[in-house]
Amino acid sequence: MTLQARPLRLSTQSPDFETRFQQRLHWSADTDAEIENRVADILAAVQQEGDAAVLRFTERFDGMAAPSLHELELTQAELKAAFDALPDAQRHALEFAAARIRSYHEAQKKASGESWSYRDADGSLLGQKVTPLDRVGIYVPGGKAAYPSSVLMNALPAHVAGVGEIIMVVPTPRGEKNQLVLAAAYVAGVSRAFTIGGAQAVAALAYGTQTVPRVDKITGPGNAYVASAKKRVFGLVGIDMIAGPSEILVLADGSTPADWVAMDLFSQAEHDELAQSILLSPDADYLDRVQAEIDRLLPTLPRAEIIAKSLNGRGALIHTRSMEEACEISNRIAPEHLEVSSNEPHRWEPLLRHAGAIFLGAYTSESLGDYCAGPNHVLPTSGTARFSSPLGVLDFQKRSSIIEVSREGAQKLGKVAHILAEGEGLQAHGQAAVLRLDADSR
Amino acid sequence: MTLQARPLRLSTQSPDFETRFQQRLHWSADTDAEIENRVADILAAVQQEGDAAVLRFTERFDGMAAPSLHELELTQAELKAAFDALPDAQRHALEFAAARIRSYHEAQKKASGESWSYRDADGSLLGQKVTPLDRVGIYVPGGKAAYPSSVLMNALPAHVAGVGEIIMVVPTPRGEKNQLVLAAAYVAGVSRAFTIGGAQAVAALAYGTQTVPRVDKITGPGNAYVASAKKRVFGLVGIDMIAGPSEILVLADGSTPADWVAMDLFSQAEHDELAQSILLSPDADYLDRVQAEIDRLLPTLPRAEIIAKSLNGRGALIHTRSMEEACEISNRIAPEHLEVSSNEPHRWEPLLRHAGAIFLGAYTSESLGDYCAGPNHVLPTSGTARFSSPLGVLDFQKRSSIIEVSREGAQKLGKVAHILAEGEGLQAHGQAAVLRLDADSR
Repeated sequence: MTLQARPLRLSTQSPDFETRFQQRLHWSADTDAEIENRVADILAAVQQEGDAAVLRFTERFDGMAAPSLHELELTQAELKAAFDALPDAQRHALEFAAARIRSYHEAQKKASGESWSYRDADGSLLGQKVTPLDRVGIYVPGGKAAYPSSVLMNALPAHVAGVGEIIMVVPTPRGEKNQLVLAAAYVAGVSRAFTIGGAQAVAALAYGTQTVPRVDKITGPGNAYVASAKKRVFGLVGIDMIAGPSEILVLADGSTPADWVAMDLFSQAEHDELAQSILLSPDADYLDRVQAEIDRLLPTLPRAEIIAKSLNGRGALIHTRSMEEACEISNRIAPEHLEVSSNEPHRWEPLLRHAGAIFLGAYTSESLGDYCAGPNHVLPTSGTARFSSPLGVLDFQKRSSIIEVSREGAQKLGKVAHILAEGEGLQAHGQAAVLRLDADSR
Repeated sequence: MTLQARPLRLSTQSPDFETRFQQRLHWSADTDAEIENRVADILAAVQQEGDAAVLRFTERFDGMAAPSLHELELTQAELKAAFDALPDAQRHALEFAAARIRSYHEAQKKASGESWSYRDADGSLLGQKVTPLDRVGIYVPGGKAAYPSSVLMNALPAHVAGVGEIIMVVPTPRGEKNQLVLAAAYVAGVSRAFTIGGAQAVAALAYGTQTVPRVDKITGPGNAYVASAKKRVFGLVGIDMIAGPSEILVLADGSTPADWVAMDLFSQAEHDELAQSILLSPDADYLDRVQAEIDRLLPTLPRAEIIAKSLNGRGALIHTRSMEEACEISNRIAPEHLEVSSNEPHRWEPLLRHAGAIFLGAYTSESLGDYCAGPNHVLPTSGTARFSSPLGVLDFQKRSSIIEVSREGAQKLGKVAHILAEGEGLQAHGQAAVLRLDADSR
């Protein structure tokens, strides 16, 4: 039987559109109680026993026995050797991508991540001091879904922010090391790296053990155990968003070659069966042409089976009344990746309010952004772009308010603070302000 | 018996300093399993039943029966009436504070919260579009610890960010409304307000009900039920930090009048018994003088009992070898509030890496910052200043990466993306890049 990929065909004009559209979007982040309990046990064990517990779980889950956690640390020499051993093309590609990512995040730091201050009319100083985190942990998945590009996307913003120490953890089940991941760690300037994973690695980073230093924040994707562990240590350390399945939404006016768009839908679908690819266009013929290209191109791809499952189960080609309506629907979805595949992308961009990353114009395939355009590929999924942002320099910095009230300022502010503090029944607050008033102002 | 407040006296030179210091700092954020279960049930009920469940819990927990949730909505007229009925001094104080807070957050938006972009050598556009959240929820505690200043500190940054709709929830047990809170909601421009609280209010905001609109983010402090509920809905909506007990750390070189510093320690301690006030100074005599002022001033304060419990249980006066050592200890604590009570505050400020807010010089009492200096008083507690920041405009915005790759750029980026995608086994990613190569570049 021939493999077929038939994304659900919808039209915003049909009466059942809303129902069928909502069904297709539905994805539940419900947690599994058994996983939750096992993760709680793993965290408690690592918090109490440190290295010993991490070694025990690593042997149990990754089939890796080691006499001490030091044996599971990768040396800088090993990272460099992995890089040096790569074919020239891969070495250059990693370096090229790293340079682009670094320079984009430097621009971000300059635009949004610098300290600032001003003096008011009374000479009081007000502002914010922006400082890097001391030490962060980066979780890198091992096994099949080992993505060296994720190492760059997590470690480089931390570097640009000025983080003192970057600790990478990457599970290596049965000892299998992904040389591209090690090479990427070298290029990205990871400080230390341990071949541990799962909830035990998150616990080691959050609590610290005899060997693994405690970090201030943990970023990076992982499986359900890793996600649960990150959610549990949130508050003790910072974490990035908990990622759901990856999604792409393409708004097309019909001007982009249909095979380009078909391949863009594939490139999301090939991640996993739960990934979601949606195409919106006011041009029904164009949707037919994209479907034809899907049929033609699917057999050419090694991951055709995953792509077909993803597109059949979660994909959609939606005929809209207009590009404006397509933009409105996009805002309701708040997609992780949003391609504006149009020859007038700047006409539509201002209408788009919620998205992790917006790819403008036919030449901007999501895959260019995934690897080397410069912006981060760690993006808010599952509609969380309504309230959260791409990973970036800001995630590896924190801010401290700076306040220096002048004697003159204290006279004005003190009276107001006194009134408001009394109104809240906090008299010591009020008195602390009153004590700073000059004798003749009281 | 006379009430006494005796913060623990420590010296960094004594051999047991480290142990005793750690004991004093210890605070456990451990969650209560019973609360967790009850909150899970409340969230599930509100998610399924909507208004009906919120009404049931409001009757049960707040002793307020209402036939419909509309009855629990405060009208804009009611908020305005509360403001109009205030004494002049309070009205002006609220407006003065609001103006200062607004102008500080406008400066923050300008410095860190604007969209930016640049074109690279190939003419590709790279940047970030910064947009406000559509709708946010603000939790305001009711009853005794009802702080109108918190309404300003949560709502005004949202306003400055450009948030479309601000929904306030505030429990009013047995119908008792705090008129200052209502007035503050009017001054801060809250869009809608409901007299509901607890986990049921958080659930209503996160899931939406027939009457309460679903929001994108929930901020604001609350009790253990509120904190647990916020942690559970995190991911579906954004949340701010989960707050622990409030803390102040004062670094003093001995130049500030001792009664000013004693009152600053009080103004933290008066919040609740778990609040923590710590003074560090290289001048032992100064510590004695502050203790003498504590003894003298304590009886003058209505909240003397809470202050005494807090200082006796969690307070500390620490004799350090030097101001430099005091700064190092401060960095280990990462305090919420950090006063540099010195006549050369700018000498020490560069040494301070982790703090929610830094108050420079003798005139800058924490209480001025709490109410009206301008910066936010919602600050990271319990050492979370290591990785998080004051509430601000950035919390009410999100960023979308903007990428527009030129045809020329696509030729360079495409080759690199192809190599890296092949290395990760993601062939559709690679082909999406290859399709954009000009025929002569493939």
